[in-house]
Amino acid sequence: MPVVGMVGAGQLARMTHQAAIALGLSLRVLAERPTDSAALVVADPVVGDYRDLDELLDFASRCDVLTFDHEHVPAEHLHALVDKGVVVHPGPDALLHAQDKVAMRSRLADLGVPVPRWRRIDTRGDVADFAAATGWPVMVKAVTGGYDGRGVWVVDAPGEAERLMSAVGSIALYVEEHVAVRRELAALVARRPSGEVAAWPVVETVQRDGICVEVLAPAPGLTIDRAEEARQLAVTIATELDVVGMLAVELFETADGLLVNELAMRPHNSGHWTIEGAGTSQFEQHLRAVLDWPLGETAATAPAVAMANVLGGIDSDLGGRLPGVLGADPGVRVHLYGKDVRPGRKVGHVTVLGQDPAEVRARAVAAATALRGTALGGPA
Amino acid sequence: MPVVGMVGAGQLARMTHQAAIALGLSLRVLAERPTDSAALVVADPVVGDYRDLDELLDFASRCDVLTFDHEHVPAEHLHALVDKGVVVHPGPDALLHAQDKVAMRSRLADLGVPVPRWRRIDTRGDVADFAAATGWPVMVKAVTGGYDGRGVWVVDAPGEAERLMSAVGSIALYVEEHVAVRRELAALVARRPSGEVAAWPVVETVQRDGICVEVLAPAPGLTIDRAEEARQLAVTIATELDVVGMLAVELFETADGLLVNELAMRPHNSGHWTIEGAGTSQFEQHLRAVLDWPLGETAATAPAVAMANVLGGIDSDLGGRLPGVLGADPGVRVHLYGKDVRPGRKVGHVTVLGQDPAEVRARAVAAATALRGTALGGPA
Repeated sequence: MPVVGMVGAGQLARMTHQAAIALGLSLRVLAERPTDSAALVVADPVVGDYRDLDELLDFASRCDVLTFDHEHVPAEHLHALVDKGVVVHPGPDALLHAQDKVAMRSRLADLGVPVPRWRRIDTRGDVADFAAATGWPVMVKAVTGGYDGRGVWVVDAPGEAERLMSAVGSIALYVEEHVAVRRELAALVARRPSGEVAAWPVVETVQRDGICVEVLAPAPGLTIDRAEEARQLAVTIATELDVVGMLAVELFETADGLLVNELAMRPHNSGHWTIEGAGTSQFEQHLRAVLDWPLGETAATAPAVAMANVLGGIDSDLGGRLPGVLGADPGVRVHLYGKDVRPGRKVGHVTVLGQDPAEVRARAVAAATALRGTALGGPA
Repeated sequence: MPVVGMVGAGQLARMTHQAAIALGLSLRVLAERPTDSAALVVADPVVGDYRDLDELLDFASRCDVLTFDHEHVPAEHLHALVDKGVVVHPGPDALLHAQDKVAMRSRLADLGVPVPRWRRIDTRGDVADFAAATGWPVMVKAVTGGYDGRGVWVVDAPGEAERLMSAVGSIALYVEEHVAVRRELAALVARRPSGEVAAWPVVETVQRDGICVEVLAPAPGLTIDRAEEARQLAVTIATELDVVGMLAVELFETADGLLVNELAMRPHNSGHWTIEGAGTSQFEQHLRAVLDWPLGETAATAPAVAMANVLGGIDSDLGGRLPGVLGADPGVRVHLYGKDVRPGRKVGHVTVLGQDPAEVRARAVAAATALRGTALGGPA
């Protein structure tokens, strides 16, 4: 059987390993630390630095195909790996669009994909010039490296923009219109090198403080046309950008339609519900895609599925709360990541399947809240 | 989080590890060889001999609770572990009934559970005496150690019985009536130390040459009363024998009703369908039960579920056939065990969920047959 190597050993790698076991594989992970989420549960994790090309090459030499739990491997290393003959999925030319938001916005605009109005910030006056056309406030975002609400600022006035630019120093930024978002959606697809694409039902993602806290599948009340539009956008992006593996397209739903916000080229938080909620999970599908194996069916297994993230609270004794949560709702499916609890950190998720969207959502939120324990000031 | 140690590292341990990952645990396994099915996919497998008490004690010292992938640990070792304070689930007094078929038959008869007529063989004339009452043929079985059709003989005449007894030497045997079996069923339950019991829908198991080849859930055409009777038998046995963890009760359905054939006190082949086909899999439930955590819901997730075992064929290139099988049916769920292919060996299983029992069965059999490859003389 081929060996899939995953750079990074967080919860995405951990759940990918569960899927790998079923396929008769044993995932090889390159962990930063032996206590990383996936490193705790795989055979012989390799501990090394993904920023070091020699360590990447050494890791790749023990794998048939290389894929990723995150987008942080430097682009030049990815190109060097490919030049050395390593099979890298997604490849660097695709992955660039998940690493660099300016490259992503430019390319999507070229493809005719609807995106928020934006421009790169080159000089101090650029934000005010941009806002003169769109109105205040505007969003200022880091070109690379931002996620879970980090690297994103709402800016209300020219002076604020200048203070921000002084504070961030040399970090590359771009400015974007402040979109009146009704809600956020995500369209997940997987694509093989051969071109086959599989798409899951489009979901609603609920954010709090920039962090995804809930996912509702399928997105409640989404019209068939709008769902098909979102799905088709994801298929187009996967195909045009030559993505291999999972692609998550994060979307804004506005009064005027859909706008693409972010891309991720790996299993994604908005797809955790697929473990129990779809014919094939995003984790198994990612493996099938990077191995160029036929993709599995993606239909939902229940009329309504809700996923809620378990965020770390003040009290770290997650294990102590688990039996109570299991006892309170025998139908909740728990996934814990083996991570030390830190406030706000994603340490697990729960999924509930059922008939009614509101009911499964309430149950998932109740279980996730109970696992979190004492709230961090304000409702959990 | 507590550490569950599993003695044995076959496919049951492998699939238990998948479930352990979701619960935030990392299963510790005691493997016979580093290439054992589960040893390939867990962190830091311990390689040792379960027949050696010191090695068992050393393994147990690194675990909070000890459980099993098989029934082969000597009873005296189990008692010694308990005497040293190790938490052993199921305990030796329960496990005896999965290890020793005479002890099991005696105890079940005492409980009023219907079992085939039987007697222990002490002298050469016992088989003929027994057959004088039941008629020929009779079944002669090994008291311990038989499984998958091994340790079971159909005997037609007194001379044949005597030849068999000479051939097996000192192995303890018992004789049993040859039951006119309509079909075989299995009732699975899990039980916690606190007494909570959870039961899954009763399934039909299809055997060939003494090996389970298919499982159909729920058992097609089983009346509600008969299903309830089977389920109640399993609950009674689990409770009366003080089983902790999974209990699989294998049953004969005859013209006159149900008879209990075998007991297994661990995750069981007849429960593999629960991974996708039930609210909680037998593997997760086993962990919850041995940890004395609340049990999960057991309802089926689809109207019809079929599981087919993948048996080794002549051609060992399972991995080479996998993409073709995935492509032929995007809805089939494949589980491969990472084991070397040997003819007749269980090397994986497939599960199909759907609306129609005959349709899901045909699809599961087709996928399992295709994975097996060239048949072993005769239809696969």
